[in-house]
Amino acid sequence: MSHKTDIQIAREASKRPIQEIGAKLGIGAEDMLPYGHDKAKISQEFITSVQGRQNGKLILVTAINPTPAGEGKTTTTVGLGDGLNRIGKKACICIREASLGPNFGMKGGAAGGGYAQVVPMEEMNLHFTGDFHAITSAHNLLSAMIDNHIYWGNTLDIDLRRVVWRRVLDMNDRALRNVVTSLGGVANGFPRETGFDITVASEVMAILCLAKDLADLEKRLGDMIVAYTRDKAPVYARDIKADGAMTVLLKDAMQPNLVQTLENNPAFVHGGPFANIAHGCNSVIATTTALKLADYVVTEAGFGADLGAEKFLNIKCRKAGLSPDAVVIVATVRAMKMNGGVAKGDLGAENIAAVKAGCPNLGQHIANIQGFGVPVLVAINHFAGDSEAEVQAVKEYVAEQGAEAVLCKHWADGGAGIEEMAQKVADLADSGVSRFKTLYPDEMPLFEKIESIAKNIYHADGVEADGKIRAQLKEWEEQGYGHLPICIAKTQYSFTTDPTQRGAPRGFTLPVREVRLSAGAGFVVAICGEIMTMPGLPRVPASESIRLNDEGLIEGLF
Amino acid sequence: MSHKTDIQIAREASKRPIQEIGAKLGIGAEDMLPYGHDKAKISQEFITSVQGRQNGKLILVTAINPTPAGEGKTTTTVGLGDGLNRIGKKACICIREASLGPNFGMKGGAAGGGYAQVVPMEEMNLHFTGDFHAITSAHNLLSAMIDNHIYWGNTLDIDLRRVVWRRVLDMNDRALRNVVTSLGGVANGFPRETGFDITVASEVMAILCLAKDLADLEKRLGDMIVAYTRDKAPVYARDIKADGAMTVLLKDAMQPNLVQTLENNPAFVHGGPFANIAHGCNSVIATTTALKLADYVVTEAGFGADLGAEKFLNIKCRKAGLSPDAVVIVATVRAMKMNGGVAKGDLGAENIAAVKAGCPNLGQHIANIQGFGVPVLVAINHFAGDSEAEVQAVKEYVAEQGAEAVLCKHWADGGAGIEEMAQKVADLADSGVSRFKTLYPDEMPLFEKIESIAKNIYHADGVEADGKIRAQLKEWEEQGYGHLPICIAKTQYSFTTDPTQRGAPRGFTLPVREVRLSAGAGFVVAICGEIMTMPGLPRVPASESIRLNDEGLIEGLF
Repeated sequence: MSHKTDIQIAREASKRPIQEIGAKLGIGAEDMLPYGHDKAKISQEFITSVQGRQNGKLILVTAINPTPAGEGKTTTTVGLGDGLNRIGKKACICIREASLGPNFGMKGGAAGGGYAQVVPMEEMNLHFTGDFHAITSAHNLLSAMIDNHIYWGNTLDIDLRRVVWRRVLDMNDRALRNVVTSLGGVANGFPRETGFDITVASEVMAILCLAKDLADLEKRLGDMIVAYTRDKAPVYARDIKADGAMTVLLKDAMQPNLVQTLENNPAFVHGGPFANIAHGCNSVIATTTALKLADYVVTEAGFGADLGAEKFLNIKCRKAGLSPDAVVIVATVRAMKMNGGVAKGDLGAENIAAVKAGCPNLGQHIANIQGFGVPVLVAINHFAGDSEAEVQAVKEYVAEQGAEAVLCKHWADGGAGIEEMAQKVADLADSGVSRFKTLYPDEMPLFEKIESIAKNIYHADGVEADGKIRAQLKEWEEQGYGHLPICIAKTQYSFTTDPTQRGAPRGFTLPVREVRLSAGAGFVVAICGEIMTMPGLPRVPASESIRLNDEGLIEGLF
Repeated sequence: MSHKTDIQIAREASKRPIQEIGAKLGIGAEDMLPYGHDKAKISQEFITSVQGRQNGKLILVTAINPTPAGEGKTTTTVGLGDGLNRIGKKACICIREASLGPNFGMKGGAAGGGYAQVVPMEEMNLHFTGDFHAITSAHNLLSAMIDNHIYWGNTLDIDLRRVVWRRVLDMNDRALRNVVTSLGGVANGFPRETGFDITVASEVMAILCLAKDLADLEKRLGDMIVAYTRDKAPVYARDIKADGAMTVLLKDAMQPNLVQTLENNPAFVHGGPFANIAHGCNSVIATTTALKLADYVVTEAGFGADLGAEKFLNIKCRKAGLSPDAVVIVATVRAMKMNGGVAKGDLGAENIAAVKAGCPNLGQHIANIQGFGVPVLVAINHFAGDSEAEVQAVKEYVAEQGAEAVLCKHWADGGAGIEEMAQKVADLADSGVSRFKTLYPDEMPLFEKIESIAKNIYHADGVEADGKIRAQLKEWEEQGYGHLPICIAKTQYSFTTDPTQRGAPRGFTLPVREVRLSAGAGFVVAICGEIMTMPGLPRVPASESIRLNDEGLIEGLF
């Protein structure tokens, strides 16, 4: 329908003052802290005041394993929110904030695409309301206080070699991955090896997104393990006395940000933990607040359903007491073809056989979600080149799995292009058929939890882990961390740990390379494969061409 | 009059919506970008639209060399602004933003004190409108791009040992002063020595505060020298192609922030470069904008008049074409006593002899400012224990210097306590007697400029510098940097480089230990003595007791 770029469409948006958007959810201007005219934070007083209300319906948007063809998960989340509003429902969207650093490497992430976007796009990809900067400050204050504690006598007897708390920056900077600090003599402390992660990988980010309120935030920050003594006893952020000051730094960041879609519908954009070493969903406080204000809340989870939805359900829903009423899995004809073996350059040609061959990837995600007791719809996110026969092939395949697929044209047509889906989602959520249960109970041993995910979600034959890892898990169980859920860190491109294995592979095992305890966030990370917590810039970074043009508009960021 | 603390007074302030404050300066709500209800950035469109107007009068508040007794320079700046408004003048205040990091070391800086404060105090000492975070991001993007350039082939032939661009954080973290980066193997780059400074020490901060507009900002950013080649040729930020993206990151930070005093008068709080390795004044854009909107603009400069006012006059005024109409030097009876040899514990007792003995420090500052052709008034910032005779001694001394001292009680009484001074300042500024000239012309050789400051301002016998430093200055002159002004970095506690030498010492020389070129900011830094660009935390940092109390108020920050 349109050949405009996302940024052109975003810039042409007729934004309404944020007070009007808040009013749609019954939030008064006095309960909003404006950041410019198109962004606002919602006051804690207001959030507290609505706790007695009934929850709306919770709808999760997830996807097949991502391919280079693009799935449009956020686009569909935004489109579905607009579609629900368009058919007369009171709906709100909840998505994650973007990380600033990576936008200066590759061209930046829009929040949605085409005519299904959240605005203001530029600011959401730059400093936005400063939440990530606050997390960087809070994280690095703790880092400085740890080294300062050691400098002034180390009464906690921290083992210099066992400081596990690193530093963070919201920047792609490979030079900071491994550093030696405190060089230059006595006045600068005790030299030691450490490094920087990107801010979204901070446990502080995960905590901000899981905390119920500021008191819960402070408690969780205090629970973080920052180092071990010579006797291998954990040293907590609370021991460093950093939890109070970190909470002060995070006071505003904790409040959800309200923005709007191109169709002037409300969207909370709040928090953005990594979807590998953390759980990859927007904040609990945004989602729970939205559920008090709207009849339908559409949210999404990072990566494909095997990683993103699994963590949304097993970590976020478990911790926050949330229960999804329906799940939408986003698929595209193009991604099905790629799963069926077609190269990216050949996606233009109709290839029904390849579509069919790729469908088992989708099928396994459908079955996995159904296994959680939640009803599923499949959104076929329409691309201009998709043939009717190809779309039909996907629909038929999905029907065979006991679900339904609906063609959605929100990218080209906004909410008007996704009305059919919106109605079906609303009906499904209202039907009350959801019987959500987590995959594993809290009391299951940690290793068995990993096995449960590997076998039931990835369909692996089992889990490989050496004795050291098993012993570590046992030790944490003895220390009282056995009840925690598992956060798997692995490639998002495959059910396996090999990113080239598309489709629905069988006959493989899940190798666990390392386990980490996020005691404040409240999960155990099982690292399966290479996980990069500080990206680098490419040979020609996007930042080389980002600039303000003569009209004062940003070029090169999108 | 009151035994309330600064923070108690600040919390009891009856703040008006920021739109009302802007209206006092003729700024419409549509030209303000609100950050909450009590802070706003002024749009560039509006700033551009008022450029044709006549300037108001510019009043600089400076001080004697600081002593542990406290002088109250910002308090007097704020009080004087309120006093001018109180006597019916249209006045605006321009001060610097606070650095977040140091507040977690020692108890944080209020913006003024007593009943002469700018609010919201908490936010001004935390994230405020995010300007410093934007500077941190822009600075570190350049750092990442430099290492990335080297990583991908180093076509600019940067000498790894001669990368002069470091990284920054707004945090007191001694462990980061000297680090080795890029450890851990091929994928992480080439190991090298570098370090972190605190954000306020970034040349980006100095540039933001000296740039006329965004175009000027981008040009200056491009002019920064980041490294040298094996042949010792400079490599500029422009060569790294970082200037455009840095400008995008600084787009909002460049716009002045409007807040209010306790008496609801307008105050711009914008920028905050270090007063040692940079020039230590609020932004040029805030000052020049305020001059278009108010009849009187009261601003201040960092440290004592020998460092702060000297740089304000020789760097900021020179670069921005500003011409001050009057200067107020703040002194206190207590500080005169300390300059006269009294220990801090003995300040309570009347000691007229000590007051008289300390006055030559004040006298030298008066004479120095008069040497710039600008008329001077002395504000005696009243403390409860000051005796009338002591105050009288200061007044008589000042009269002997051909100036006038006025007792000011703004700390206790707000604008009402400084009406007499406000009237005298307004009269003096209106009189047109100011004949401002800089201390030295652009074309004077760099070493002679240092000598000029040393002899005329510090009253040193001369400058000591080894041949290497003199040769470096010559080299910069040959490269076209000879026209730049000098930014002296030395202790603020004395006219000499020895912080224990109070009063007005004679018979000393100024040793220059090192010179640095800030080619983007546009000055040559002469470092005289130890200068710390990354502070550390004390044994018991303030952060250990900072927390939110049960009412949600911040404790321990002030």
